Amino acid sequence: MADWGEAAFNPSSIALVGASAKSSKLGYILMRNLLEGYPGKLYPINPGETEIMGHQAYPRLLDVPGQVDLAVIALPTEACVEAMRDCAKIGAKAALVLSGGFAEVGPDGQARQEALIEAARAGGVRLIGPNCFGLYNCNLGLNASMGLGLPPKGGSISLVTQSGAYGMAIFGLAQQRHLRFAKILSHGNKADLADHEILDYFEQDDETRVLCLFLESVSDGRAFYEALVRVAQRKPVVIAKTGRSSAGRRAAASHTAALTGDATAFVTAVRQAGAILAESGLEMVDIAEGLSRQPLPTGRRVAIITNSGGTGVELADMCERFGLSVPELPEDTQARISPLIPAYASPRNPVDVTPAWARFPEMYAGSIEALYACNEVDIIIPILLQRSALMRENVEGVSEAVLRCQREPGLAKPTYVCWVVGREGDENQAILQEAGIPVYEWPERTARTAAAIAVYAENHHARVEAANVNP
Amino acid sequence: MADWGEAAFNPSSIALVGASAKSSKLGYILMRNLLEGYPGKLYPINPGETEIMGHQAYPRLLDVPGQVDLAVIALPTEACVEAMRDCAKIGAKAALVLSGGFAEVGPDGQARQEALIEAARAGGVRLIGPNCFGLYNCNLGLNASMGLGLPPKGGSISLVTQSGAYGMAIFGLAQQRHLRFAKILSHGNKADLADHEILDYFEQDDETRVLCLFLESVSDGRAFYEALVRVAQRKPVVIAKTGRSSAGRRAAASHTAALTGDATAFVTAVRQAGAILAESGLEMVDIAEGLSRQPLPTGRRVAIITNSGGTGVELADMCERFGLSVPELPEDTQARISPLIPAYASPRNPVDVTPAWARFPEMYAGSIEALYACNEVDIIIPILLQRSALMRENVEGVSEAVLRCQREPGLAKPTYVCWVVGREGDENQAILQEAGIPVYEWPERTARTAAAIAVYAENHHARVEAANVNP
Repeated sequence: MADWGEAAFNPSSIALVGASAKSSKLGYILMRNLLEGYPGKLYPINPGETEIMGHQAYPRLLDVPGQVDLAVIALPTEACVEAMRDCAKIGAKAALVLSGGFAEVGPDGQARQEALIEAARAGGVRLIGPNCFGLYNCNLGLNASMGLGLPPKGGSISLVTQSGAYGMAIFGLAQQRHLRFAKILSHGNKADLADHEILDYFEQDDETRVLCLFLESVSDGRAFYEALVRVAQRKPVVIAKTGRSSAGRRAAASHTAALTGDATAFVTAVRQAGAILAESGLEMVDIAEGLSRQPLPTGRRVAIITNSGGTGVELADMCERFGLSVPELPEDTQARISPLIPAYASPRNPVDVTPAWARFPEMYAGSIEALYACNEVDIIIPILLQRSALMRENVEGVSEAVLRCQREPGLAKPTYVCWVVGREGDENQAILQEAGIPVYEWPERTARTAAAIAVYAENHHARVEAANVNP
Repeated sequence: MADWGEAAFNPSSIALVGASAKSSKLGYILMRNLLEGYPGKLYPINPGETEIMGHQAYPRLLDVPGQVDLAVIALPTEACVEAMRDCAKIGAKAALVLSGGFAEVGPDGQARQEALIEAARAGGVRLIGPNCFGLYNCNLGLNASMGLGLPPKGGSISLVTQSGAYGMAIFGLAQQRHLRFAKILSHGNKADLADHEILDYFEQDDETRVLCLFLESVSDGRAFYEALVRVAQRKPVVIAKTGRSSAGRRAAASHTAALTGDATAFVTAVRQAGAILAESGLEMVDIAEGLSRQPLPTGRRVAIITNSGGTGVELADMCERFGLSVPELPEDTQARISPLIPAYASPRNPVDVTPAWARFPEMYAGSIEALYACNEVDIIIPILLQRSALMRENVEGVSEAVLRCQREPGLAKPTYVCWVVGREGDENQAILQEAGIPVYEWPERTARTAAAIAVYAENHHARVEAANVNP
């Protein structure tokens, strides 16, 4: 049964049911998306066409001459069940149903969804959706979704999202931040595949190093929990769960027919399983960015470098508020930093280099090196604000210093940049992001993300240690 | 004594001590800033020049032929006390000392600061700073600060910030959001003018309709509290206070020599005074934006319109988490919305219009009108996500519907937009912002801001009522 994942993410052949040459149709967008990068065999299915975008079209699935790994179904609601019966007849391994109009619209839709499941199960076809946005395997060049464009290859974050539109917004945001993804799955009503089966797949998928789940509901809570425990031992899992309030639960019911369950029990289970709970989709991306790009910290002691005293104070406040500490630096580290900065500046922590902008590049890079060498610092947060962010040689200097220090054996500790400047700084921001250094806007978000990762790291180290003691 | 404010913000004449024609000098930047828009008399002071940028220069303050309302001092630290003595001799009303190197650098600086105060007080000169960024009166075209550029006129928010660089970052962010300011004051070490005197000024300043304070410390807590009570009765005051943690307090001491005091007592006092406490500088701007641009809500009931079910669920969750409610809409309102949206969409709340994008403009505008007409809704939050945000006619439709409804007598209720799209949506975002509709990115920030304003409004209405009952 586990090969639904291979069929869905690495299919040798795809049939697109409802393929169209008319640009107003979803079947047109999907055809274009699949042609853009998918290297396997593609069969467009449309009873009214013999050829679509240079590919031979077939009237029905039954007419396809070869094996179909993945059927992508983009038909009017009422035609989907019949298409699923065809999938069963030809032995398709998985079927992705993008169409809506099922359980999320009430009793009639519920009945239609049950017929869809029955048709799939009769032929051993695993159903993804219905009422969903689709899926990506970025490293393969596969875009079987409603979203336009092919993301860059080379990513290691995978995203599973029950909400199509919100999931795609998260994905869009992450791309804007130069994050790269391995796989994306939007599974909408989750009529067939259970959450634990999805976890099983991503546990085994070596291309996925960080897994993000944006959930409204969980199917089979017990099995989900057990799978989560297993996956979380192998890779970080970041979960944002909506439908936690009464209004949210009502809204989830009409959105993906989700019964969202008890919020407190869910939160407890996630934490016990060793996964990370994010408060929102945005925070989920923030945490995944830090996890995928930087080493885990070995403690909670933060060192801050800033060119704005006030921002340093706010960030120090926020770090403590979220459970990190910002201790005064040891004397030898202060002694190493002092000669770099003006006499009226502070080497204590925050290291306040003051607005002496002409010296930013040497002060920032030198302080970073001193902090990497300091055993009493676990996390380094340079604040880049206005001029220090806009000065290209300073941003390049920060990036180079971090990469240089991280190459030294035994110096693994994470750096997160706190970014406080308008959009005129975007080009410089990209320098850091492309070097793999996470950038968070403003102090609160930076501190919150660093704290979530530090708490995770602490629990993770404790688990690893316990496992070594009691094998 | 209260005319320090008039002298500082509406000076008839300014002497710039340390004016320079050399572009590497602070005195050059200030000269350019003042010339850019300040309509009054300007006297550059520099012993080595007879003319700077077309203006006659004077060797010393004592040589200026007319009255000086405001002296702006941009000199090396050690020359500032002497300049202040000159200010006293010529009877300058206020002196703004931008230079640092005073109490924030330790005992020597502290002594220098005391000499500065003594020199000022001997001549009745009110001192702003030292170690500060300067001030703006945007409506006058006065930029007496280190920041480049003249903000647009016509604003009603004033910002008082102890931290220069962070304050300017806040100001820059706010400008990017098309917010307009009345006055900005960065007062650094606050050696002379006490916080309550600053409050007194802004209480009387009719151009300031919303006052933001970004504070590290408070001078004379009792007088501050009493002034705050008075100002908060006349206009909303939003306060962000840093230096609340132990690390933050240590950093504040070396930043502006601030003794930050007891955080809990401060929080309690702010709330009792009827002011609004923001958790960060960013949240302060968010709240000020909502207060300055929209009417106050009369209750906590939120109605949400969304084209992404998942985002609607998350926003509903967040609203409840921060103390707002998202009740199911009354039947007549649902009956009015239902014909506008697809059969499988939801009119319950969130109003989920589904991804049926061709109908976005009529669905959003029509739902907004129905929600304005509904007595069981106090706050309206349209979510604009990806396509609904990128479709210009939809964004224009939302903006027009809101303005149309708000013109109707008796329909005053606030609309805040929850914005979930990348930077490709910036142009459309500006359409809303220029129409005076606040835009907040992603659900958490939107809900948090709406909740802070709703709680303030509730307390404010209660105070007004109590004042009417017990005159």
